[in-house]
Amino acid sequence: MLKIDLNSDLGESYGRYHIGKDDQVIPLITSANIACGYHAGDPDVIAKTVATAEENHVGVGAHPGFPDLDGFGRRKMDMSLDSVSHMVTYQIAALAGFTSNHKLHHVKPHGALYNAAGKDLNLALAICRGIKEFDPNLTVYALSNGKLVEAAKQLGLPVAQEVFADRNYEADGSLVSRKKPNAVLTDPEVVAKRTVEMIKNQAVTAITGETVPLTVNSICVHGDNDAALQIVSQLHKTLNNEQIDVATY
Amino acid sequence: MLKIDLNSDLGESYGRYHIGKDDQVIPLITSANIACGYHAGDPDVIAKTVATAEENHVGVGAHPGFPDLDGFGRRKMDMSLDSVSHMVTYQIAALAGFTSNHKLHHVKPHGALYNAAGKDLNLALAICRGIKEFDPNLTVYALSNGKLVEAAKQLGLPVAQEVFADRNYEADGSLVSRKKPNAVLTDPEVVAKRTVEMIKNQAVTAITGETVPLTVNSICVHGDNDAALQIVSQLHKTLNNEQIDVATY
Amino acid sequence: MLKIDLNSDLGESYGRYHIGKDDQVIPLITSANIACGYHAGDPDVIAKTVATAEENHVGVGAHPGFPDLDGFGRRKMDMSLDSVSHMVTYQIAALAGFTSNHKLHHVKPHGALYNAAGKDLNLALAICRGIKEFDPNLTVYALSNGKLVEAAKQLGLPVAQEVFADRNYEADGSLVSRKKPNAVLTDPEVVAKRTVEMIKNQAVTAITGETVPLTVNSICVHGDNDAALQIVSQLHKTLNNEQIDVATY
Amino acid sequence: MLKIDLNSDLGESYGRYHIGKDDQVIPLITSANIACGYHAGDPDVIAKTVATAEENHVGVGAHPGFPDLDGFGRRKMDMSLDSVSHMVTYQIAALAGFTSNHKLHHVKPHGALYNAAGKDLNLALAICRGIKEFDPNLTVYALSNGKLVEAAKQLGLPVAQEVFADRNYEADGSLVSRKKPNAVLTDPEVVAKRTVEMIKNQAVTAITGETVPLTVNSICVHGDNDAALQIVSQLHKTLNNEQIDVATY
Repeated sequence: MLKIDLNSDLGESYGRYHIGKDDQVIPLITSANIACGYHAGDPDVIAKTVATAEENHVGVGAHPGFPDLDGFGRRKMDMSLDSVSHMVTYQIAALAGFTSNHKLHHVKPHGALYNAAGKDLNLALAICRGIKEFDPNLTVYALSNGKLVEAAKQLGLPVAQEVFADRNYEADGSLVSRKKPNAVLTDPEVVAKRTVEMIKNQAVTAITGETVPLTVNSICVHGDNDAALQIVSQLHKTLNNEQIDVATY
Repeated sequence: MLKIDLNSDLGESYGRYHIGKDDQVIPLITSANIACGYHAGDPDVIAKTVATAEENHVGVGAHPGFPDLDGFGRRKMDMSLDSVSHMVTYQIAALAGFTSNHKLHHVKPHGALYNAAGKDLNLALAICRGIKEFDPNLTVYALSNGKLVEAAKQLGLPVAQEVFADRNYEADGSLVSRKKPNAVLTDPEVVAKRTVEMIKNQAVTAITGETVPLTVNSICVHGDNDAALQIVSQLHKTLNNEQIDVATY
Repeated sequence: MLKIDLNSDLGESYGRYHIGKDDQVIPLITSANIACGYHAGDPDVIAKTVATAEENHVGVGAHPGFPDLDGFGRRKMDMSLDSVSHMVTYQIAALAGFTSNHKLHHVKPHGALYNAAGKDLNLALAICRGIKEFDPNLTVYALSNGKLVEAAKQLGLPVAQEVFADRNYEADGSLVSRKKPNAVLTDPEVVAKRTVEMIKNQAVTAITGETVPLTVNSICVHGDNDAALQIVSQLHKTLNNEQIDVATY
Repeated sequence: MLKIDLNSDLGESYGRYHIGKDDQVIPLITSANIACGYHAGDPDVIAKTVATAEENHVGVGAHPGFPDLDGFGRRKMDMSLDSVSHMVTYQIAALAGFTSNHKLHHVKPHGALYNAAGKDLNLALAICRGIKEFDPNLTVYALSNGKLVEAAKQLGLPVAQEVFADRNYEADGSLVSRKKPNAVLTDPEVVAKRTVEMIKNQAVTAITGETVPLTVNSICVHGDNDAALQIVSQLHKTLNNEQIDVATY
């Protein structure tokens, strides 16, 4: 039987500031990427989010990002590779302190750190060294076919390759930029059907028509708003109909 | 044979900002209280300081403080008790991520958090809950006879009671305020002699002449400048002459 | 003809985090207290909020707070009085840089700084020194009858005394704590009627029945949610019926 | 008579962290670039530094940088151009609040912002829009011949072109990278002699021997340590011997 993991970014609130419908999306996913206090999240938010994820038997993962709350970790910073490694270890370790056994299920870099790691092998290796320093058996969630996959393999870290259910792809396997038309898909049924195809074929049809082979271990979904939640609900129905098991990677 | 632990606050540099002669004081102590990135320290500084402490076989401890870099953790903040617990767990866990086995030797609160915990049992209990959440066997370093000792005992955490080699005491066991004359002792020989007496008698002579009983498990020393380092050097000589073993608690 | 000023806290968003229905409340008020980047707000939010306030001919005021984004400026910090003065000058000046003539209409401290200034004359004086350093003609918005009124008068700063439309008062003129029942009033008509009485009588009926004299120059209203906006709308209708002019103080 | 301005970066301390011998270098310069609290400096440091500069009749300038204290503003951040403009206005305005007339003599971007502005016209224009928003008559200090000079001129802002006394230049007018040998000159007499030549010739001899024309309005000097101060002292002597007047631009 085919199986697939669903992951989502969570714990992005901060102090009095609230983002995301975490309580509603957590029961629908199998892996949670939880912000660690650098680009979002604070110790109170982390404590609550980890507890909710554990209650729902969701894999607890760290979601480290650049130290830039005002930019929500979406602005690339030219940090030294050593500083990247150290800040990744710091964030992972801090988050792990809130889980019941101080272990994590996975690590997925956030925002600009994630995007840059998909293209820059040296940065990806620095991230992986920071992860390995904490736990050499920790699974790295990475853009399918990107440099972070390569870096994790080089360092012997397990890796889960992820695709985006609601995004169009270029022929080279990269995401269509949000600045272009049709970058994002919004129809829940279209998204669900397309996701099933990606899982079954381990490939995606590019916006220009080509078939692009992709390893598909996990699907990234969103829980920011009602439309996003509706997409995840539909995805569950379609996966169930297709007898694809939703399970933590 | 009598034995005593020497502890010092370390890893207080931040980015381009340097504080403390860590490399010189580490070989002279047995327990290091390392800043965790809230009131001082950053991931690069933490990595370096933990490595140096481990190379010197010094007990690695976390030194959590208020989230106030500009105030160096010396300004009390009216945080909720839950937020105190969570920020303590966060800081401890982050630091532990840099040690070779992800365990710590001890935890000592910093600055205004330490001072307030000595007087406020509820705050002290919140700190101890944050510590116990991470590791129920972690030793708490606390002002001798203060409320943090009481809180640690209530929650079943091991506790090391510390005294200050270079400070005068009031008759009630509290430190003479730095705003008063003679709060601080500066003559290395006087400090060393007085410290030996505190260890042997488990008591200190107050500035007003009374004998104040104190449990003395560890001595807090400083490494900020040459004068501080000279005090520690003299202390070692005198302890050696008195056949008091300097060893991690 | 009687007149009254309506003020509200604005510009409290930060980066990707949004708080408050600023665009809806601004047309309903006459004085805007705009966060300055310490407890809330960032340069992008400030630029947008000042522009909207100026377009609506609303008095632009600075709303300085403690440097504590995670606590939203609601946690008291034991800062030195000099540091308080300097951080007030800094925040006021930064905000004024975005107005068309680099002048402000008023300053109102935020959160824990506001509350503490109402009771602690020394803190209130430090705040006023920070304001006077920037502009000795700047109006201070202060809790009616509190220590900040006294401090502003001592230093020769103009002062506007404000009351809270939706809060019950104790017999000593302080606000009923939010921890007690009936601290907050929620019925728009009750709030509006009560506000008119405060303006006409320059007094409030305490929760225990006594008449408490209060100087009423401005009413603090909220724009966080639809219920809050409904209160302000009703207040406008009632003030209009009573022929009380709504105008900047 | 020839004249030249000497500028230096100041006010880079933060809280308990001290950097720079500001009190010693201020009497030796004519223009002070004072950190504004984003990459360095805090309101207490700003108040003290502005006061010292004014007492010494030194031109007070703002030294805005990226919001990255841990990286000391030396790590490029991919901010939107609007955010760059707004953060520049914010920092300039905050600093101006501490001068006696709320006006500044100049603005010089710091670190990675300065370096990037020298090469990227769009970034340089965004910085200049942020400056012009505050004061369209404010002089921009910029790397001689760089893009920031072009941007300032486009927007009609006065500009002072600066050179570095202690750095070698490439044939294209850029600075020799610190990663290469001989990037920095350390002999005070060599530095002084070379500086005089730059002023007289409005040109520099590149490390590869070519003569590179440069507009030389101001010389950037340092006050971080005793060696840096010695260079400035020698420079004063040599400029005096050559009858070149040291005066604010």
